[in-house]
Amino acid sequence: MTYGSNALRQAVLRANQVIPEAGLAQLTWGNVSGVDREGGYYLIKPSGVRYDDLTEDQLVPVDLRTGQVLAGDLRPSVDSESHRAFYLAWPSIGGVTHTHSTHAVAFAQANRDIPLLGTTHADTFNGPVPVTRGLTADECATDYELNTGRVIVELIGDDASAAAMPAALVANHGPFTWGATPGKSVEHAIICEAVAEMALKTLALNPAATIPDHLAERHFKRKHGPGAYYGNPKA
Amino acid sequence: MTYGSNALRQAVLRANQVIPEAGLAQLTWGNVSGVDREGGYYLIKPSGVRYDDLTEDQLVPVDLRTGQVLAGDLRPSVDSESHRAFYLAWPSIGGVTHTHSTHAVAFAQANRDIPLLGTTHADTFNGPVPVTRGLTADECATDYELNTGRVIVELIGDDASAAAMPAALVANHGPFTWGATPGKSVEHAIICEAVAEMALKTLALNPAATIPDHLAERHFKRKHGPGAYYGNPKA
Amino acid sequence: MTYGSNALRQAVLRANQVIPEAGLAQLTWGNVSGVDREGGYYLIKPSGVRYDDLTEDQLVPVDLRTGQVLAGDLRPSVDSESHRAFYLAWPSIGGVTHTHSTHAVAFAQANRDIPLLGTTHADTFNGPVPVTRGLTADECATDYELNTGRVIVELIGDDASAAAMPAALVANHGPFTWGATPGKSVEHAIICEAVAEMALKTLALNPAATIPDHLAERHFKRKHGPGAYYGNPKA
Amino acid sequence: MTYGSNALRQAVLRANQVIPEAGLAQLTWGNVSGVDREGGYYLIKPSGVRYDDLTEDQLVPVDLRTGQVLAGDLRPSVDSESHRAFYLAWPSIGGVTHTHSTHAVAFAQANRDIPLLGTTHADTFNGPVPVTRGLTADECATDYELNTGRVIVELIGDDASAAAMPAALVANHGPFTWGATPGKSVEHAIICEAVAEMALKTLALNPAATIPDHLAERHFKRKHGPGAYYGNPKA
Repeated sequence: MTYGSNALRQAVLRANQVIPEAGLAQLTWGNVSGVDREGGYYLIKPSGVRYDDLTEDQLVPVDLRTGQVLAGDLRPSVDSESHRAFYLAWPSIGGVTHTHSTHAVAFAQANRDIPLLGTTHADTFNGPVPVTRGLTADECATDYELNTGRVIVELIGDDASAAAMPAALVANHGPFTWGATPGKSVEHAIICEAVAEMALKTLALNPAATIPDHLAERHFKRKHGPGAYYGNPKA
Repeated sequence: MTYGSNALRQAVLRANQVIPEAGLAQLTWGNVSGVDREGGYYLIKPSGVRYDDLTEDQLVPVDLRTGQVLAGDLRPSVDSESHRAFYLAWPSIGGVTHTHSTHAVAFAQANRDIPLLGTTHADTFNGPVPVTRGLTADECATDYELNTGRVIVELIGDDASAAAMPAALVANHGPFTWGATPGKSVEHAIICEAVAEMALKTLALNPAATIPDHLAERHFKRKHGPGAYYGNPKA
Repeated sequence: MTYGSNALRQAVLRANQVIPEAGLAQLTWGNVSGVDREGGYYLIKPSGVRYDDLTEDQLVPVDLRTGQVLAGDLRPSVDSESHRAFYLAWPSIGGVTHTHSTHAVAFAQANRDIPLLGTTHADTFNGPVPVTRGLTADECATDYELNTGRVIVELIGDDASAAAMPAALVANHGPFTWGATPGKSVEHAIICEAVAEMALKTLALNPAATIPDHLAERHFKRKHGPGAYYGNPKA
Repeated sequence: MTYGSNALRQAVLRANQVIPEAGLAQLTWGNVSGVDREGGYYLIKPSGVRYDDLTEDQLVPVDLRTGQVLAGDLRPSVDSESHRAFYLAWPSIGGVTHTHSTHAVAFAQANRDIPLLGTTHADTFNGPVPVTRGLTADECATDYELNTGRVIVELIGDDASAAAMPAALVANHGPFTWGATPGKSVEHAIICEAVAEMALKTLALNPAATIPDHLAERHFKRKHGPGAYYGNPKA
């Protein structure tokens, strides 16, 4: 039995390939998964495989309920259990991305939220991209990756909140992002890194920079909700 | 009926393609337009279309007087009304570019002008690249994009001023640039980003950096006005 | 007689080519070597040869015991004696890399360790990447490159320590890295540069940034030792 | 009559092409020339021509004594007279490069020398890369480009000094570099930019960074003078 439709497998493979193309991670760092809700599993990058070598056949099917590998002899990404926590918490997401992109990691390592300072950020995120609390020694010792996912869910909240804030930084680690599809989740990783770089440089020029609420809201609503008017579904 | 001469359509398409090639924006961010003054319209990138996929046929013709789309079923860039404000205010410009380039955005988010610190800047801009005042809540609520254009026109002034300062930063947003052609407008976007990066790094080394007026003027006049001697019209 | 198996020659050539591909050095800066323990020699990049021109035939075999060139009429990298010091001190390493990568050099020039601030770093290095003491005038005057290797060995310690900390910064100079193979040594050079850039930017956001020990240890052990569970030997 | 041997024309063209390849300048910024001492002229990039379009036939021959164009209908780079000042002052140089590379410009705009902080710098430059005094209003008004060359010559000194310090920053402008050949001059431009970036980032980590004299001298002498032992003339 082959897990995943052709479309899902292609989407997960393609989204993984975007990670090095967009400069979001070195070597084998980072991973993208995509979920099949009806099938009750997700497909995720195998651990430690180089992006250049990655094929659809190597994607690892993981049981949504148990976290067990369903087929093949490759181990999933070590972060698989974090992905699973998101799929269980947020029924409307279809893809998850984890990277070690430089500027998002810098904020994560500094234990600072990526502040909301401009419209590039407001177009996608409805507030600062938040950083989690640190995991306790116990949370690190047992079920570490699942606990990593849990502290993000604890931070973000429910499904609607996850749609309005499709990114979080794990303290001293790096960004996780999600979206309706694998492609959307990696697109949010690109945006998260871009706004982190802009914010770091803005703070160098003006440590007290802020944005008026009415401007930020205007931009978020250009792309989200019933009044959205960005984009071209027909194109 | 096809809008735009072949030359105009090619120029607008090509200038849009320069945005990702020059690293001025991620994903579908940014847009270039070019105007047909006799025809009374401009051609602009459609909203949300990826640069790799963009074709001449997708460029959206917009009425200069009304802002309405003249043909096709694609929506123009959400920033179309800002472009229109510039064409109406400044009769000698032929193209407009909007990007989210990192360092220009950092100055915009910091609510700081890009200071005039060197000859790279003075070759093109006759002073600091200015940042607009913030838009009011009312200006954000109604005709937001048109108002964005208006605050820039309010800041820059008349046609001659727009030729001597072909760029501005919208507070908490990013750069708009313009020029005699679509290609010149995107060239100004490249220069705006380059001098923003140089300025940010100069300020890190010397927060009190300045340039003598006589040096800045000399460079601006090497490229502008009756005594200009840069370039090779014959090449 | 040809020195080095085909596999070793290919591995050393390939690892040298990674230096410019990964942006770790300009021009002819940097060098990788690989050792043949049974043969008692290592193969190293010749001095001053451009990476684009480099061939397997140009790799210089150097006697592990004496440091003398064993064949050919090309001089080895000027840093050859530093490599030799590492091979003599640490029996389990198989390759050595030296680069002038920008951010690692910045820490070396600042005479600061690269601090351990996040999991990207902890995955590979079991603590801060340390910077050596400065070489004395005498150490610079005679056997300079050998002394450079010696101060690193003095800093790092024994073979087990070299496996847990496969990188060091020479004060006012730059990074040396090593590993089980030439390819692993250049991979450690990539990671050293990446975490240096992340650390520099983290410190700009939070000069007091730190990481809890339990998180750092958890990540180091995901990839090292009997409990390691990262990667896919079968892939 | 064709000016320049095939070898000189190819060397000047190739060195110009390195400018965009190495990321040293945007658009048409920057220029390289090479001199024919016996012929009494130099070949230089024409003004305002894009690097992608540049051909050997477009290189402009300029009389060393008068600064007049000897053939063709293209204007030389506006910086031609600065190049001429260097060729007249320093008989042993064969090529000159001018760029607007980001980090070297940042130091020039900050009116700061690029400090000597590490061996990357000491391998090529025998001290800090110095920044000129500002040009006076009179020097800007008449013979501006020639005066730009003169203040650099005033700063650097004689031919031997120019060989030991093949770079300078013009205040509020940017770097000029030179060398025995056009290729060497652009190589010095690459190194000048690399060490400027390293220095800026070093100063961010340690504003009081310095290097011991004995280490800097050791490195300069590895590549210069009778005891030099870097490189492979035979390769």
